[in-house]
Amino acid sequence: MAGSIQSVERAAAVLRLLAGGERRLGLTDVASALGLAKGTTHGILRTLQQEGFVEQDDASGKYQLGAELLRLGNSYLDVHELRARALVWTDDLARASGESVYLGVLHQQGVLIVHHVFRPDDSRQVLEVGAMHPLHSTALGKVLTAFDPVAHREALELERERFTPRTVTAADELEGVLDLTRARGWAADLEETWDGVASVAAPVHDRRRMPVGAVGITGAVERVCEDGEIRARLVAAVRDCARAVSRDLGGGRF
Amino acid sequence: MAGSIQSVERAAAVLRLLAGGERRLGLTDVASALGLAKGTTHGILRTLQQEGFVEQDDASGKYQLGAELLRLGNSYLDVHELRARALVWTDDLARASGESVYLGVLHQQGVLIVHHVFRPDDSRQVLEVGAMHPLHSTALGKVLTAFDPVAHREALELERERFTPRTVTAADELEGVLDLTRARGWAADLEETWDGVASVAAPVHDRRRMPVGAVGITGAVERVCEDGEIRARLVAAVRDCARAVSRDLGGGRF
Repeated sequence: MAGSIQSVERAAAVLRLLAGGERRLGLTDVASALGLAKGTTHGILRTLQQEGFVEQDDASGKYQLGAELLRLGNSYLDVHELRARALVWTDDLARASGESVYLGVLHQQGVLIVHHVFRPDDSRQVLEVGAMHPLHSTALGKVLTAFDPVAHREALELERERFTPRTVTAADELEGVLDLTRARGWAADLEETWDGVASVAAPVHDRRRMPVGAVGITGAVERVCEDGEIRARLVAAVRDCARAVSRDLGGGRF
Repeated sequence: MAGSIQSVERAAAVLRLLAGGERRLGLTDVASALGLAKGTTHGILRTLQQEGFVEQDDASGKYQLGAELLRLGNSYLDVHELRARALVWTDDLARASGESVYLGVLHQQGVLIVHHVFRPDDSRQVLEVGAMHPLHSTALGKVLTAFDPVAHREALELERERFTPRTVTAADELEGVLDLTRARGWAADLEETWDGVASVAAPVHDRRRMPVGAVGITGAVERVCEDGEIRARLVAAVRDCARAVSRDLGGGRF
């Protein structure tokens, strides 16, 4: 049994490797990155390819992630209860705020975006579903870090990257931000992750009052902020949405 | 080596099982569906859970697909050359046609949607990226079946479901449709998959003139059709888009 588990772990490591950094790798690159023999690596890659998890480029012979992962990722979303409950409320929030709406959950050491409603205008926008956002600098991430002990541990243990001059990276300073987030029930990101971009988010709780995700809006700082703070009507709209989704999850109103 | 490959195959089978039908399954359900011993199945599920590919519901103890698949599926899209080349052209097509735009590739026995541009109005729409559409009845599927020999074999071997009274299921009739598709360079779906919905699609070719995908629009039959046929200006817009993407892929103009 131990052997069979190990090969599944190694297959997962191959997929993680292909998901980060270079993303198109030859057999030798994969083997050396994972510290495995070439024969072992080839067996895993061939099996992953046969299952559709990995594709091999005809011309270069390099490996990359395969289409079956997209199909399975979509199936994951289909049974995602939080996302299903949030669909209507997040649409309403995008309409009310005029900004992009994101729904995120804790995954590994970051926020996994599980739903994204485009800003309701005709501009070209890139879908962020499946993308990872940082815990320490985004509004979604701060909410999860403030309310979910697992996220808190991850955010404090991680090396916290400075994305802009405004990113909070020192542990004690971050704890202060999290205390404030818990006290007022929402978090902001004022150009701490992307220059010119501000966001605000609030926690979603389930029937056991556990924080299961965060919902928020993101937009140009000129629209979202006034006098250097998030506009109060946008904070209210985000918190209304988070409460509505929590209630739909059985979170209760009191 | 053979053993390690087998356990990866089994892990893939567990994920496929959780992606279809019931989607939330107990240990016994998974073991019996795959014809494996419970101990073996538990080892695979536990490893998949530890890697984030599977999640276990606290209350019911049932297993479902995990968040890591969404992250990996998103990474798959990030390196998808066809999709990257098509982004701007499909946006233009949605604007020009006023309808939803889909980009699809052959995967397993169907069309995997790798890009979806919403109809440019304020209506509520569900993102179809990662969804599978049938080969024999959709415009995208007919294009792939007509131009890709592998898709052709799949479509002819498959049991072809009758979705509406207009679905073509007989092999000889389908071959006629495919001949027409090859002759005119595009395919239509006139309420053959969904009642009230029509679509039109054209093939995308790469630098080796291989059919690598299909692009098309889908919408209400009342808007898309005139006198029982796809409007000529929509056919032209779809074919313009497919040619533009092919050219960007190095497909050449002649």
